[in-house]
Amino acid sequence: MLCAVAEGIRRSSETIIAANDADMARASGLDPAMLDRLRLDSARVEAMAAAVDDISRQPDHLGAVVDQRELPSGIRLEKRRVPIGVILMIYESRPNVTSDAAALCLKSGNCVLLRGGSEACRSNLAIVDAIRPALEAADCVDAIGFVDPSDRASVGQLLAMEGRIDLAIPRGGPGLMKAVAETARIPVIKHDAGNCHVYLDASLEGLEESARAIVVNSKVQRPGVCNACETLLVHRRVADGVLPVIARDLLERGVEIRGDADTRRLVPEAAAASEIDWKTEYLDLVLAIRVVKSIDDAIDHIERFGSGHTECIVTSSEKAADEFLRSVDSASVMINCSTRFADGGEYGLGAEIGISTNRLHARGPMGAEDLTTFQWVLRGDGQVRS
Amino acid sequence: MLCAVAEGIRRSSETIIAANDADMARASGLDPAMLDRLRLDSARVEAMAAAVDDISRQPDHLGAVVDQRELPSGIRLEKRRVPIGVILMIYESRPNVTSDAAALCLKSGNCVLLRGGSEACRSNLAIVDAIRPALEAADCVDAIGFVDPSDRASVGQLLAMEGRIDLAIPRGGPGLMKAVAETARIPVIKHDAGNCHVYLDASLEGLEESARAIVVNSKVQRPGVCNACETLLVHRRVADGVLPVIARDLLERGVEIRGDADTRRLVPEAAAASEIDWKTEYLDLVLAIRVVKSIDDAIDHIERFGSGHTECIVTSSEKAADEFLRSVDSASVMINCSTRFADGGEYGLGAEIGISTNRLHARGPMGAEDLTTFQWVLRGDGQVRS
Repeated sequence: MLCAVAEGIRRSSETIIAANDADMARASGLDPAMLDRLRLDSARVEAMAAAVDDISRQPDHLGAVVDQRELPSGIRLEKRRVPIGVILMIYESRPNVTSDAAALCLKSGNCVLLRGGSEACRSNLAIVDAIRPALEAADCVDAIGFVDPSDRASVGQLLAMEGRIDLAIPRGGPGLMKAVAETARIPVIKHDAGNCHVYLDASLEGLEESARAIVVNSKVQRPGVCNACETLLVHRRVADGVLPVIARDLLERGVEIRGDADTRRLVPEAAAASEIDWKTEYLDLVLAIRVVKSIDDAIDHIERFGSGHTECIVTSSEKAADEFLRSVDSASVMINCSTRFADGGEYGLGAEIGISTNRLHARGPMGAEDLTTFQWVLRGDGQVRS
Repeated sequence: MLCAVAEGIRRSSETIIAANDADMARASGLDPAMLDRLRLDSARVEAMAAAVDDISRQPDHLGAVVDQRELPSGIRLEKRRVPIGVILMIYESRPNVTSDAAALCLKSGNCVLLRGGSEACRSNLAIVDAIRPALEAADCVDAIGFVDPSDRASVGQLLAMEGRIDLAIPRGGPGLMKAVAETARIPVIKHDAGNCHVYLDASLEGLEESARAIVVNSKVQRPGVCNACETLLVHRRVADGVLPVIARDLLERGVEIRGDADTRRLVPEAAAASEIDWKTEYLDLVLAIRVVKSIDDAIDHIERFGSGHTECIVTSSEKAADEFLRSVDSASVMINCSTRFADGGEYGLGAEIGISTNRLHARGPMGAEDLTTFQWVLRGDGQVRS
């Protein structure tokens, strides 16, 4: 069925792109990051189909036995994976979430209610239409529901359906997160902001070029997504050497820099950063930079302003890497590689339903396995408890 | 430290029992199931200490690597267990929850705020006092906090502390569950009601005696706890043969029976059951009995009235067992053994923090491993994403 879903998307590529063009035409007032997330072209539609193919080839987690033993009484115990149930997916902009979420929920035996943003409504409907024949052929067309985004009251009603809907997964900006948090009576796994940091440590011997590449990649490669870097922290011992070079790299790529006083001394083009900058997920070609006195100061800054999504340390010191890892309480910690790797596909999970900023059930990139829960099965031959 | 905690409980056994006597004296108005849960004697205090010892001997889940691989780019990925953080435990009556929860949270690297019921306040305080010297010796006395139950506003304030408290675990009756659900802004793992069923299938060849023993054990062995059986469903093909015998077993043990018309025909002592009985978690020596036409009727009854905690089928048919297992969506499914086995200790998890009726993160008996979450660690040497 999933192969047929992918085929359906490929076959409808032109229809999907035409619907997306209509959405884009109406969305001209949105900011560039939003527009980038909304836009589809034939390469992105093919990537959507390829992600579904990839999910179809992943191992099947349903029924997988994750624990088994014989109890002293002779009872055979099994803990096995079962579907969560009905999942409400609430998201904005990126139409590929429609096919990713549908395929991941089908793979894991769940039903999904898709509630995308009104700005992507035509794109999302075209994708659901492209998928539907595959569901009809498998006689499970009810496994996917499309929630009309123009009916604004429906989200609140759905979020209150305790016992009927088992999980809500909101993916989007702070407004959406706040609305869901205030309304939801059903369990929620948030896919919230990524205020991600790269920290350049005092020990950078031999890593100066890597540091440049990691900072530029983390900021510039796709600035509109949640694993992009938003603040660069630089140890003052290496700031004189690396900051001007990195700043030039960034400025050449059109990045606007906002820095503290030490940064502005080294990078005259930098505007003054305020506390608001430390808190902001720009999702744009803007980077806040701060020079710190120590690794502890970097860790404190991350604890105070970070969102627990993804942080990176660039260091040649194993001790510093260990301290960073032990102290930074984020879903993903990168040692000497780009924050942009924080992604289900990169982690080998196949497509992801999102990147969870919850601490419970799923944390960080969340794939099909995380869309299951457990059931305990005990097989006896008449045992009773004494 | 956990061994010292267990030792502290043993050393303070008399003080704890004296404090419990004072609680019991004030609690004489409570119902028998509540009183049974509240009561401590030297055997129960020793069982509390033994549970802590047991937890100390369990494997350490912190830092355990649950997934690792090398990514195509050469980055080494690890998914490892880390503590959840600060856990708010809200519970009623049973004072052993105090030491179980404390030991399990310490074992898994968490801080815990203990908010027991006011009826058990002296017992709980005595237990915390008995534990404290062990914490002081290990310089982590702040890992356990005691919330004064007489300050009724504090629970609501604590449940609203998003970002400060990572998880609330309520264990108790419907009133507590409703209050928590309405107030909580932090994640909650409920330990809600167990409206557990035993279903006696049409195929009982050779299992008639087992059926008797399982029904009696599931109902009578400890009626005041959540894995006790509350409704018995009997296939009409075997009802004539087994129901009168089982009813006599139950009546002899003081069980009050409430049955449907078919049951009352076979068991004249049975009172008439109404829909309220199908919904009720008696936590007492009362059993509802219904004669069903088919296994599908039994499954429908469980789906409609059950709480998803634990259900049991007694059958000699593998086909019936498979159908029951596939269709009954409960945390634990027992095939030919007592519902009373649904317990962390019985499952080999050591003491349990409770039995989760949530579908997410932890389902069914919840031990120390379920009190951890994950962190992804990526170690590279300069990789960037292309």
